[in-house]
Amino acid sequence: MRIALDAMGGDYAPAVNIEGALDTTSDFPDIHVILVGDESVLRKGLEGKRYSSDRITIFHASQTVGMDESPSSAIRKKKDSSIRKGIDLVKSGEADAFVSAGHSGVVMGTALLCLGRSDMVDRPAIATIMPTLKAPFVLIDAGANIHCKPKNLLQFALMGNIYCRVILGRDEPRVALMSTGEEDSKGNELTKETYKLLKEADLNFIGNIDGKDIFSGNIDVIVCDGFTGNVILKTSEGLADTLIKMLKREVANLTSGRIGYLLIKPALKNFKKKTDYDEYGGAPLLGINGACIISHGRSTAKAIRNAIRVASDFADKKVCEIISSAIEKDLARHERLKSAKK
Amino acid sequence: MRIALDAMGGDYAPAVNIEGALDTTSDFPDIHVILVGDESVLRKGLEGKRYSSDRITIFHASQTVGMDESPSSAIRKKKDSSIRKGIDLVKSGEADAFVSAGHSGVVMGTALLCLGRSDMVDRPAIATIMPTLKAPFVLIDAGANIHCKPKNLLQFALMGNIYCRVILGRDEPRVALMSTGEEDSKGNELTKETYKLLKEADLNFIGNIDGKDIFSGNIDVIVCDGFTGNVILKTSEGLADTLIKMLKREVANLTSGRIGYLLIKPALKNFKKKTDYDEYGGAPLLGINGACIISHGRSTAKAIRNAIRVASDFADKKVCEIISSAIEKDLARHERLKSAKK
Repeated sequence: MRIALDAMGGDYAPAVNIEGALDTTSDFPDIHVILVGDESVLRKGLEGKRYSSDRITIFHASQTVGMDESPSSAIRKKKDSSIRKGIDLVKSGEADAFVSAGHSGVVMGTALLCLGRSDMVDRPAIATIMPTLKAPFVLIDAGANIHCKPKNLLQFALMGNIYCRVILGRDEPRVALMSTGEEDSKGNELTKETYKLLKEADLNFIGNIDGKDIFSGNIDVIVCDGFTGNVILKTSEGLADTLIKMLKREVANLTSGRIGYLLIKPALKNFKKKTDYDEYGGAPLLGINGACIISHGRSTAKAIRNAIRVASDFADKKVCEIISSAIEKDLARHERLKSAKK
Repeated sequence: MRIALDAMGGDYAPAVNIEGALDTTSDFPDIHVILVGDESVLRKGLEGKRYSSDRITIFHASQTVGMDESPSSAIRKKKDSSIRKGIDLVKSGEADAFVSAGHSGVVMGTALLCLGRSDMVDRPAIATIMPTLKAPFVLIDAGANIHCKPKNLLQFALMGNIYCRVILGRDEPRVALMSTGEEDSKGNELTKETYKLLKEADLNFIGNIDGKDIFSGNIDVIVCDGFTGNVILKTSEGLADTLIKMLKREVANLTSGRIGYLLIKPALKNFKKKTDYDEYGGAPLLGINGACIISHGRSTAKAIRNAIRVASDFADKKVCEIISSAIEKDLARHERLKSAKK
């Protein structure tokens, strides 16, 4: 698998990006990483590192997109950015997938412009996998679309459903709509209208859920607009991090805490691993004709490594192609069902 | 303090409501609880319990509002409900505050109808106190208003600011707007417009935050619409609960876990106490001419007890009166500042 990595994107680029790339090539023998970015900077970053030059290569891009840039202007003007060049490599077939921890709005806009949407999909969405007490679930949209219409959420549900089947191996994913309560009267106009569409769709739709049910492990796909998805994802990460710190402090305050802490340390480590964002690494943009994986701005080397792994898996399982063909059928069936009812 | 308690509201009513009321009267000698609800049911529930009859009394209400009833019809038709009768006791001055774990929409609507809004406040909001690594903060609106306009959020910010000063004792609360990133370009139309209003307001406004900053302890008041607030509140509760279970399971899986667990048990207990919703008990409706405290539908006896304590504190500190007079000044100053700029 050839993965184009935006080597200049993210808060700690290019250092962690290079480190993450090197880690993947030692851990996964069939991955080849193309570092996309300023050649002289990247050459310098690779200096003194041990790597095989046919597994890590550099593709020059003279521009970098800042985290605070306006997406529309960056997409229009920075045609030699590491984001644009990386996505172009996917388009030309020189890379199987693209990974970026840079400006997610610019990645999405550029992907739309250069690779185009899957037929029948109006807007691509970010599908993130999150841990629970039992098995993980798919949250879609985790932040790509701040404003959504009911039909966008229906498409997210269908894409999330396919993604969950292919990547998490669930046969008949239980799909739920994020709202403020279980009753169908709960929520805002968007959720109420979406509820009707999901009920009619060819999905195992189990209804509305609210925040307290998210981590129950009884749901496979949670559908929401990107504002809500961003709030859920980031609040969960912030809270998990805070709770671990609070707990450590409580343990440190005990006289018997030191030894108790040592005894449960392996458990804490396992726990941290299960709730650590870096383990999940990156989330794909679904609904694009090409594999694009978006990673956190705060990505560490471990997160970059895991995002590259996700990208390789995504490309290997041909998720884009499966979504394109399946969603067309799903939406066509949805339209037929609707007209049959009239 | 005379607290009218909706004895019929909540998933485990009236048993836990009665138990919570009995606990308050033994723990707080200056609280008198008026149990509002079906007299014969409540008499039976009190049978065999030890309590002082001048500290727990019953006020009969023949109707109960179900959790799935339509608010408008329940408010219009059920004029003898425990919610309506309890709020009437506040209106007539026979109670200093009202507490309900029942249908929050019906409580809000009835409070608006019977007690009225504070001058200058278009919509009341729920202000919830949430724990962090450092000090707790105020989340407003935690679920009363699903649809909001920028001016509603400005008013929530001003009310939350006053509430934080009076109840948490902070001098100059740091007020933040919930969004999807720190930059003022982030968020939806509502947050972008609200950002401008908050920047102009007489507040210590520190800008946008996203989910990962919520629990940092660097913010005193977080402002959002009620849909987002409900998502944050319930997701946090669900996640905290899940994380504790995950951690316990990890510890149980260790050979050394049993003894380690025993050694850190006091820390886990402290931790649970700090993150336990029941400890906070209830959240006031701000912007109403009267003290109304809303508690979770899933309230336990401990949550009811603590909601009664919150209600007593709220009434004692005359928060309603302070908000009414302060917000009038704040909004008048805001208008003056705006016209002066023109």
